[in-house]
Amino acid sequence: MEQAKQVVSGSSPQRIAALADGIFAVAMTILVLELHVPELGPHATEAELITALGALVPKILSYASGFVILGTVWIGHQYQFHYIRRSSRALLWINLFFLLVISSIPFVVALVGTYGAMRVPCMLYGAASFVAMTLLLVQWRYAAGPSRRLVGHEVPASVLAGLRNRVVMGMIGYGGGLVLALVAPLASLIIYVGTPLLYLLPARFDRDIRAEE
Amino acid sequence: MEQAKQVVSGSSPQRIAALADGIFAVAMTILVLELHVPELGPHATEAELITALGALVPKILSYASGFVILGTVWIGHQYQFHYIRRSSRALLWINLFFLLVISSIPFVVALVGTYGAMRVPCMLYGAASFVAMTLLLVQWRYAAGPSRRLVGHEVPASVLAGLRNRVVMGMIGYGGGLVLALVAPLASLIIYVGTPLLYLLPARFDRDIRAEE
Amino acid sequence: MEQAKQVVSGSSPQRIAALADGIFAVAMTILVLELHVPELGPHATEAELITALGALVPKILSYASGFVILGTVWIGHQYQFHYIRRSSRALLWINLFFLLVISSIPFVVALVGTYGAMRVPCMLYGAASFVAMTLLLVQWRYAAGPSRRLVGHEVPASVLAGLRNRVVMGMIGYGGGLVLALVAPLASLIIYVGTPLLYLLPARFDRDIRAEE
Amino acid sequence: MEQAKQVVSGSSPQRIAALADGIFAVAMTILVLELHVPELGPHATEAELITALGALVPKILSYASGFVILGTVWIGHQYQFHYIRRSSRALLWINLFFLLVISSIPFVVALVGTYGAMRVPCMLYGAASFVAMTLLLVQWRYAAGPSRRLVGHEVPASVLAGLRNRVVMGMIGYGGGLVLALVAPLASLIIYVGTPLLYLLPARFDRDIRAEE
Repeated sequence: MEQAKQVVSGSSPQRIAALADGIFAVAMTILVLELHVPELGPHATEAELITALGALVPKILSYASGFVILGTVWIGHQYQFHYIRRSSRALLWINLFFLLVISSIPFVVALVGTYGAMRVPCMLYGAASFVAMTLLLVQWRYAAGPSRRLVGHEVPASVLAGLRNRVVMGMIGYGGGLVLALVAPLASLIIYVGTPLLYLLPARFDRDIRAEE
Repeated sequence: MEQAKQVVSGSSPQRIAALADGIFAVAMTILVLELHVPELGPHATEAELITALGALVPKILSYASGFVILGTVWIGHQYQFHYIRRSSRALLWINLFFLLVISSIPFVVALVGTYGAMRVPCMLYGAASFVAMTLLLVQWRYAAGPSRRLVGHEVPASVLAGLRNRVVMGMIGYGGGLVLALVAPLASLIIYVGTPLLYLLPARFDRDIRAEE
Repeated sequence: MEQAKQVVSGSSPQRIAALADGIFAVAMTILVLELHVPELGPHATEAELITALGALVPKILSYASGFVILGTVWIGHQYQFHYIRRSSRALLWINLFFLLVISSIPFVVALVGTYGAMRVPCMLYGAASFVAMTLLLVQWRYAAGPSRRLVGHEVPASVLAGLRNRVVMGMIGYGGGLVLALVAPLASLIIYVGTPLLYLLPARFDRDIRAEE
Repeated sequence: MEQAKQVVSGSSPQRIAALADGIFAVAMTILVLELHVPELGPHATEAELITALGALVPKILSYASGFVILGTVWIGHQYQFHYIRRSSRALLWINLFFLLVISSIPFVVALVGTYGAMRVPCMLYGAASFVAMTLLLVQWRYAAGPSRRLVGHEVPASVLAGLRNRVVMGMIGYGGGLVLALVAPLASLIIYVGTPLLYLLPARFDRDIRAEE
């Protein structure tokens, strides 16, 4: 039976995961291309270089923040795929739109690194992160909702609910930052840096692992 | 027997899939490098930034469209490789030319984002997408044609035919757009956006999976 | 026994293959970044765009040629890793230097696309391809030489010799081109385009597969 | 039991390794983007091209050195993951910060390629390499320390200690270079080139493999 299912499915979640890993890896690494080596003349002094590198600090902060946001979204994605046992046309398309949003984040991060004191870049940053999280929620409802379309019945319901809650936590963080950006752009950036750090907190479903250690 | 075959084959389809996933991931993500952060002076206002971002809309649309086209071609490729059990020299070379076309799409997308109202970029866009689809058809005829060179005999013929028809559907869409671009470039772009969306429609071979859900 | 060996080895060839696939995928795809969209004024005509694209032809040819050379080197690499069952420190380092050469090819290809009529770029192109092939030969001698350090004893000696000969074929082609570039740069480019096409010819060790089809 | 553990863990080390391979592959390959094709006029002579390529030598050296440093750090990472059997939230975050440092190295390498005679770039190079090694040590203490959180009990303690010592060796090298860069930047670069070459030396834990060959 298991064998037969694989024959007709025509698609396995492993390939989606591989494409996602590749797109995340490229998106996370090309963030650094926004850091340009300062162009000083041939007689530049060390002090001038330090000043020029100091001017890069906003870009360095937005690069690091973008990297960590992408990293936590990736963590969420791979947690979900750990439980997704089958593929389907809908799963492929949810991932396609999800990865489109992921691929846009290097541009949004570059925008924030240059115009981080303005409202529009900060709102776009919040919006892209919020939409990425929302698509993770859509994927999880589709795959692991009451009908458990793509997830096995051996996975405890508490784990499925725990993963959902972690995604909702991110949506609240980035959605809140997006609203805040309307009135206080720089304050919203603090929210965007802080939200991924929430994922440092252990989840309830982490317990079982620790118990075994 | 199975063991012996593996010893002499010298090549497994998994490695081709891994290279393809990597090239698709890079091509899909570097599309965004065409979106340059607007260079406004240090006293730029929020309104100026919004105007500058508005001028990026054609590039944003061509980036999103290119991403979705690449995504649907990738979906087609991974569906085929789900059934391809063996590798061969011909399969390697079909994939090499296929991936060459895929790697050229970021350039074509950038061209359309800049000169989308002209005929040549729209024709090149249609041509690249059409050739990519054609090479998927060549691969499928080679691997899953009547002699089933690289596909197991347990896969129902209806699934193989269904996968072929999906590729032909794309060829018709992109080929039609290519012809239309000769007389109406902007109209052809609508075809290029619409064709991948056809793949949102469920395929006949999706049925078996849904039946099990 | 097999289990115990894996425990001490500390390294598996799969990870090397994964890194190599990633580096090949990136190198093959960033070749296209050398094709810049022509910057014409806002009132540019279609004819001007065609002229500007025509001027890109040398770069397009060197991009396609570089892609196919990298592709055939990748094919050689994955053929060898199909038989390599173990890893070792020496294997890791051979691959590190091999991948360093691979990563330099986008630069060499860009150089040829701009200064293809000069000797130095054509010699560098031949040299990089020749060194890549030489490192494949070093790897194969190390892994599959008389002592069969990393290759199982069930693989027929004729297959091992066949793979070696295919690498030597490439070394002769690129080495010959390199020498030719000293006196006739443009002629050497024809050699560089032709050499990978030699790999379209079936190898003697392909026979076993075809026999089964 | 093994099955049950996998169900609750929600994360497997394979996905972390896949993301790491992708980020290393991209970082190692985009190093070459710092080598720009010299822009000479249309009447440039071969001699002018050779002079211009000669001026690229510092950048070429820093690219090659950065590639080899990244390669040896990757070797260390994959050795550790060969033994890591489980994942955990802490492991994910250690890797996220580790990969953030890895992704910054192309910028640091570009800085050294341009301002290698100054103290700040040489110190940043040493610092990035030192922090990457330190995070490998943190990961190893966490995963393979006395409580063996993520490593099986069948792995000999001597192998675990051997892997730790190799990481400490790198920390000493890069940390020493970092201190030296304060007084003699160019001398520190020699340390940075030499440190990865230390990994060419066979490790004590390599012995078991060689014994079997």
